Amino acid sequence: MRNPLPWLKLHRAEAHCDIPCGIYDPITAKIAAQTVQKMVLRIQALAVPASNAPVEEQRAYANTLARYVTVKEEHAEICKKELRILWSDYFRPEHLQRYPDLHTTFWNAEKLAGRNKQNVDMAAAQELVATVDRIAQIFWATKNVTYSDPNATVRYGT
Amino acid sequence: MRNPLPWLKLHRAEAHCDIPCGIYDPITAKIAAQTVQKMVLRIQALAVPASNAPVEEQRAYANTLARYVTVKEEHAEICKKELRILWSDYFRPEHLQRYPDLHTTFWNAEKLAGRNKQNVDMAAAQELVATVDRIAQIFWATKNVTYSDPNATVRYGT
Amino acid sequence: MRNPLPWLKLHRAEAHCDIPCGIYDPITAKIAAQTVQKMVLRIQALAVPASNAPVEEQRAYANTLARYVTVKEEHAEICKKELRILWSDYFRPEHLQRYPDLHTTFWNAEKLAGRNKQNVDMAAAQELVATVDRIAQIFWATKNVTYSDPNATVRYGT
Amino acid sequence: MRNPLPWLKLHRAEAHCDIPCGIYDPITAKIAAQTVQKMVLRIQALAVPASNAPVEEQRAYANTLARYVTVKEEHAEICKKELRILWSDYFRPEHLQRYPDLHTTFWNAEKLAGRNKQNVDMAAAQELVATVDRIAQIFWATKNVTYSDPNATVRYGT
Amino acid sequence: MRNPLPWLKLHRAEAHCDIPCGIYDPITAKIAAQTVQKMVLRIQALAVPASNAPVEEQRAYANTLARYVTVKEEHAEICKKELRILWSDYFRPEHLQRYPDLHTTFWNAEKLAGRNKQNVDMAAAQELVATVDRIAQIFWATKNVTYSDPNATVRYGT
Amino acid sequence: MRNPLPWLKLHRAEAHCDIPCGIYDPITAKIAAQTVQKMVLRIQALAVPASNAPVEEQRAYANTLARYVTVKEEHAEICKKELRILWSDYFRPEHLQRYPDLHTTFWNAEKLAGRNKQNVDMAAAQELVATVDRIAQIFWATKNVTYSDPNATVRYGT
Repeated sequence: MRNPLPWLKLHRAEAHCDIPCGIYDPITAKIAAQTVQKMVLRIQALAVPASNAPVEEQRAYANTLARYVTVKEEHAEICKKELRILWSDYFRPEHLQRYPDLHTTFWNAEKLAGRNKQNVDMAAAQELVATVDRIAQIFWATKNVTYSDPNATVRYGT
Repeated sequence: MRNPLPWLKLHRAEAHCDIPCGIYDPITAKIAAQTVQKMVLRIQALAVPASNAPVEEQRAYANTLARYVTVKEEHAEICKKELRILWSDYFRPEHLQRYPDLHTTFWNAEKLAGRNKQNVDMAAAQELVATVDRIAQIFWATKNVTYSDPNATVRYGT
Repeated sequence: MRNPLPWLKLHRAEAHCDIPCGIYDPITAKIAAQTVQKMVLRIQALAVPASNAPVEEQRAYANTLARYVTVKEEHAEICKKELRILWSDYFRPEHLQRYPDLHTTFWNAEKLAGRNKQNVDMAAAQELVATVDRIAQIFWATKNVTYSDPNATVRYGT
Repeated sequence: MRNPLPWLKLHRAEAHCDIPCGIYDPITAKIAAQTVQKMVLRIQALAVPASNAPVEEQRAYANTLARYVTVKEEHAEICKKELRILWSDYFRPEHLQRYPDLHTTFWNAEKLAGRNKQNVDMAAAQELVATVDRIAQIFWATKNVTYSDPNATVRYGT
Repeated sequence: MRNPLPWLKLHRAEAHCDIPCGIYDPITAKIAAQTVQKMVLRIQALAVPASNAPVEEQRAYANTLARYVTVKEEHAEICKKELRILWSDYFRPEHLQRYPDLHTTFWNAEKLAGRNKQNVDMAAAQELVATVDRIAQIFWATKNVTYSDPNATVRYGT
Repeated sequence: MRNPLPWLKLHRAEAHCDIPCGIYDPITAKIAAQTVQKMVLRIQALAVPASNAPVEEQRAYANTLARYVTVKEEHAEICKKELRILWSDYFRPEHLQRYPDLHTTFWNAEKLAGRNKQNVDMAAAQELVATVDRIAQIFWATKNVTYSDPNATVRYGT
């Protein structure tokens, strides 16, 4: 590091995180990705009212659709932010040696989350959930934990 | 409920959530509570510089302490918000019948999170984590899942 | 901790607020509830363009409707947050003894605010405003003030 | 655009608000200003620990002081934002004719709120509260209402 | 100024900013204004699906339109906030003497940004960009710099 | 979904941004980095009051220092967010071929911004500004523009 003073050496050793607090968990990104998927499910299940439908039905549709799109957008953004935190704050050079594709994995994940904002696409949403799972697997492996999310289906619901 | 109109009956049945998206997980409140605890640990481990310590050391101390307090505050607030979402959006009248202390449990949890803002108190922080665990147990029981958080210690770190 | 006395007892005495700053006012929730009502009024007054209307008219409609829905959503959320602050930060055990329905009142108010997000429903919006007024009445009674909001109609406008 | 009439004229007539929702109330700025004042009171009442005080006392002091300063900052910012909304969204050219000092009044109020961030100064905090009251008086006069805030003292508390 | 106490005189001299940090740049408002303009361009270029178009196309349209409107709204708000910061934090009494129309310029700019929220209007968007440029010219003139934004067209893109 | 073509290929062509709006500018990250540097300058220039200094002076010091640290933190976070947007939203595979160190450059920049949160270190702050300048150079080169920031010194001020 660029600072020769002795007391900063300590910070170079431990500066793996912004606080550093050391508490990370990809589950936050996972829940956000599942929420994106659920919104796609909800949007696709929403019947478009006929053009001669009562105005109340058209308003209810517009209200609901606008809210689904906003939640999809917000949770895709949460997913992007959480992935960035894992990528730049948690992962360190020694992890990069063990996982040389780390940068590419995160870059593609961020772009995939962006595509989920732009589209209403169940395949892209499922891919986002699967991508976060792969990242979670890498994350927990660096802590010698075998990753699993046994309640993923119950959490997602119907 | 207070609306006699027939079309709201439908909404009364399904309105368990604001979207409703149906995706809830107390793990978000748990991570926030653990972060509060970690900040208390960090603050208590931070050596107060002697009054004749070099000015650089005093600035580093002030910078670090201010950041720890802010993160403690923010995560206690996240904890409060997530608990409110569980309480008012997820839990429904039938849950209240099964868990008649539900309101009291959440009320005390919110107040406990507030006390963690006001103090630097390891006992209060540990109690907050334990309280969120008790709420998580109730939450998952309503979904017929036995709650456990096997990686809680690894997540908390050192 | 620095206080050797039974800490729960001490905190119960002082923990009436997060700072504690002691400044609360249900008027913030009231204004939010009135804004929700105004958005419902605006949405219902907005003429749906005919399917063969000029594209400019359709865009203007979509722009306006999306904005009304977003403002309705945001102010329902502000209402929920402000009610949570009153419930968990201001009200104390002695208030609960005097108002044993306090938890139920707030729980239903939060759920009602959620329904106002989900629907475009003037009856639900009016009920939200009335509910916040009832809570304001309780709040000010604990301070020996008879609640009134004489400018509510002028504030709401046309 | 969908309106063929001279658009400037049309907008001047209707553009009194961003939605336009028409709901404004300076009470939000007033509560924020009172909170700033309360924080100054709290900060000034907080005893600085002696340099040989126990470390727990020094940490409690630092935690509390940092939180008071943050709340002061945030509510001064809320005050600035609310004043800007009144100034640019509510007040219209006809108001400016009746109150030719309107711009100066708001400009000074914004700068005064900024000084309350920069300092711990009871006189400046009291002046901010009084300034918001003067603005509220003007605001309500445009609606033919005589402004009063009868519960200001009770709200402020002790 | 309203404070006769001597130690505030110092602050009166330097209180040109909230920190005071002294770093301001109208480019942030400019980028926000250009983003508003781009959203108007995008919205106007978006083909409204025929009423008998496939439901996927209608959903994609609704998703995209809702996102454009939201981004337009958010960046118009950023523009308003940035302009307020320049107006009330940067500009000082001596600038007002040199630019006596300063208040009017900013007031109209804030209202124009509000109109860009309310409408989908290319002329209003272009006027907002031009207005921010005029303010930037004044800003930099107070620092003896001739304002130019040579990459404005490249930034805006296609 | 509405596109039957191999979706990855299609998206690679268009997914250059989340909206996509196409408006990016590293100047936002640059201003944030300069603000971090200014806060370090301010913190280091702030005289620590003697332990027997008047309590008003100690409070003023604590108020100012807490605010500088908060602004440093917030703008380092803005810098991180803006860099992430450039990295994952703007830069595309063809840029990566031309700049094979792109991932490493951004990763190190994010970590450097994190270190600026953790420390009060003028060398680290200057390095952050220089790093953003290098990224800006790459960014503008992809648009065939030679980057310069001629007013950087005036913007930074004294």
